[in-house]
Amino acid sequence: MGKSVSIPKGTRDFLPFEMNRRNYIFNTIREVFETYGYVAIETPAMENLSTLLGKYGEEGDKLLFKILNSGDFMAKADPNETNLNKWITVLCEKGLRYDLTVPFARFVVQHREEITLPFKRYQMQAVWRADKPQKGRYREFFQCDVDVIGSKSMLNEVELIQIEDDVFSRFGIHVAIKLNNRKILSGIAQYIDAEDKIVDITVAIDKLDKIGLENVKNELITKGLSSEAIAKLQPVFDLSGSNEEKLSSLKNMLAFSETAMQGIKEMEEIFTHLSYLTLNNPVELDLTLARGLNYYTGAIIEVKAREHAYGSLSGGGRYDNLTGIFGIPDMSGVGISFGADRIYDVLNETNAFPEMLHSNLQALFVNFGAAETQYLLPILRELRAAGLKVMLYPDAVKIGKQFTYANNLHIPYVVVAGEEEIKNHKLQVKNMQSGEQQMLDSTELLALLKHKQ
Amino acid sequence: MGKSVSIPKGTRDFLPFEMNRRNYIFNTIREVFETYGYVAIETPAMENLSTLLGKYGEEGDKLLFKILNSGDFMAKADPNETNLNKWITVLCEKGLRYDLTVPFARFVVQHREEITLPFKRYQMQAVWRADKPQKGRYREFFQCDVDVIGSKSMLNEVELIQIEDDVFSRFGIHVAIKLNNRKILSGIAQYIDAEDKIVDITVAIDKLDKIGLENVKNELITKGLSSEAIAKLQPVFDLSGSNEEKLSSLKNMLAFSETAMQGIKEMEEIFTHLSYLTLNNPVELDLTLARGLNYYTGAIIEVKAREHAYGSLSGGGRYDNLTGIFGIPDMSGVGISFGADRIYDVLNETNAFPEMLHSNLQALFVNFGAAETQYLLPILRELRAAGLKVMLYPDAVKIGKQFTYANNLHIPYVVVAGEEEIKNHKLQVKNMQSGEQQMLDSTELLALLKHKQ
Repeated sequence: MGKSVSIPKGTRDFLPFEMNRRNYIFNTIREVFETYGYVAIETPAMENLSTLLGKYGEEGDKLLFKILNSGDFMAKADPNETNLNKWITVLCEKGLRYDLTVPFARFVVQHREEITLPFKRYQMQAVWRADKPQKGRYREFFQCDVDVIGSKSMLNEVELIQIEDDVFSRFGIHVAIKLNNRKILSGIAQYIDAEDKIVDITVAIDKLDKIGLENVKNELITKGLSSEAIAKLQPVFDLSGSNEEKLSSLKNMLAFSETAMQGIKEMEEIFTHLSYLTLNNPVELDLTLARGLNYYTGAIIEVKAREHAYGSLSGGGRYDNLTGIFGIPDMSGVGISFGADRIYDVLNETNAFPEMLHSNLQALFVNFGAAETQYLLPILRELRAAGLKVMLYPDAVKIGKQFTYANNLHIPYVVVAGEEEIKNHKLQVKNMQSGEQQMLDSTELLALLKHKQ
Repeated sequence: MGKSVSIPKGTRDFLPFEMNRRNYIFNTIREVFETYGYVAIETPAMENLSTLLGKYGEEGDKLLFKILNSGDFMAKADPNETNLNKWITVLCEKGLRYDLTVPFARFVVQHREEITLPFKRYQMQAVWRADKPQKGRYREFFQCDVDVIGSKSMLNEVELIQIEDDVFSRFGIHVAIKLNNRKILSGIAQYIDAEDKIVDITVAIDKLDKIGLENVKNELITKGLSSEAIAKLQPVFDLSGSNEEKLSSLKNMLAFSETAMQGIKEMEEIFTHLSYLTLNNPVELDLTLARGLNYYTGAIIEVKAREHAYGSLSGGGRYDNLTGIFGIPDMSGVGISFGADRIYDVLNETNAFPEMLHSNLQALFVNFGAAETQYLLPILRELRAAGLKVMLYPDAVKIGKQFTYANNLHIPYVVVAGEEEIKNHKLQVKNMQSGEQQMLDSTELLALLKHKQ
């Protein structure tokens, strides 16, 4: 009995210990966002399908979860219809949020009279995708996005790089912050007369470390690049040295392209600002970043763990036309997104979650019955008023069972008050880790627990 | 252009100022829950329809939002089918959470080997209902539930009453905490030989204040009660005095009913425990509470504002068979739920939100250009490391525009550093409310902002 209950595949329940860890991640990220003045917004789980469809490509449309219309959803249906997309149009008007970017664009357009530009917002909410579930990939997962729109200044990129640095410093994860620029990539593609192949080129270069130069060249040939074009790419493969040296080589190579020179100028401005700061993690120019090439128009940012092969932990970039799809052109923005699930895995596998996340309670008070309860209830109230987390076991069961409960829940102190303690206005306080026992009055107990908080 | 974007009816976007207020509500409630040792869980937005259907009555089944199966959702469909419920079975396997109670019951059954009883959990998540939207009623809204399961002790009821008292004290809302007990109501219904009419009786008595005794009696006649039965109810209408006096009258009247006497004993136990505590709000026995009569088996709790006619702000009760629907019988629990939207309205209409929720930023630093930026970036970093919320305006636009930005966002301080200030390692700090200006170094500014935090 009761064994058959389950939840939809690709979704998760979160137990208390997981909630503690997840809240630690969300709260840490939120605290950093807020020190830079970013403010929270939330959008509904359901959006109109007209808002979502066509924004994520054909594959994305398929992965949207659609909501059956309520009421007589078959009223307008033609039973002989064989086209699934037409069925969807008839059956469904709403879908679940697929990411936080499109709802944000819709939000900005809808509330443009209520927000002040530059608008610095963050959003931490679930998104849903009907992807095939697999290890580390869920149908309900959580995004933490931070964006500023309505300002073209490179100081915004600098701020987001600082946020990456702050967040991963607080987590104790050593990362490399990688920077690229769409405009420089465009210049390179122009330079070898293959502007339409910009994505193929970047993806291929990205594999240089893994598969070697010859294989990269072979891949480029497969993609239709001429050997002449590939030969012209040699300086890109040879790019080395400091960020400044790389930019200087690129300047020579791409001087002909106004777009590329603009991208190089943006990159230089970012590195100049960064030179005034001492970050904990390195920031590196990396031409192989292909992330979001379809929509980023300027800076591209990606963060990887330095010591582990976890893939990307965070990333983003600048987009010059966030709200164009909803009829408001020229709204430039730049933003990054943190993968809460990936960060969870890194902290979990490296045992890097703080110790204090183990327990939610500071002390358990043993229940002996009515007289003891009368003595303890006002004391508990006093401790809670001071913000302490304490509970009285609700049933006067065997003391062994109550101690087991404290052990199971990792509660650090157990408090016992019997006849003798009540007479003397005292409490017997046991440290569950050391086994040490102390006789304290309620004020002393309050001080002890406050100190340990 | 851009004007046609919208969100599904009955759903809401939350702007930053609303998020601040909502987070204040959720955080306050959460803080209280945690001082009693309740721990958070979360469940997915989507549940299997088999988990949800049949749990909320026929009307509830209709109000469930159903998710269209992904892939070829028409594969198993019979185009000639005319029954909507059969169509749903074929088209949909999943639905959106309708409340937090059924998912909690499913969670307890599914994770029964992973949790320790008594299990004290809270859950704050959105729920979705395809109700007709109207003022104050949304299709996506937020519930804050707190329950303890696996203990029959009345100390749990006492704890939840304390939580009601704490939460509304922190909000500064004066409330009355009303208590009833399903077992006493059953006894009354037995007493007049109308056990099947328990809900009608309670609902009618509930109107005593509003429509008067005669109209209540007329309503009971309409519901099929005999005038003999109604005459026997007179002592219930006459019930008055303190909680103790009311219980004592009931004891005389209902002595014949074991069930009623059990309910009275439970009530007495609760009031005895409460007598050891000094709460801020009154706790009153109220036989007219009809809340959740379909599933509550013992205590029924409801909280109303004393000074405003806002209806119920919170409530709940004891249920003896939470997980029975999923095959695990005899799991007794008791819980209450807070209506975040209703509390928002009360705080809003009584101007009772704390002042500090107005701004997310403590200081705006004016941007004059490259040299000033170089001077300010490290100072901003130092302030943020101390947890302060500060920003540099990203663009070197006219100073007037930057001050307007500070005004719009209610930022209390604006900091200006020109050539002179940089030379002297100083900052000009303007208090935007008083207009007062001070020349400070970064350490003094840090102290000033910390002090105001």
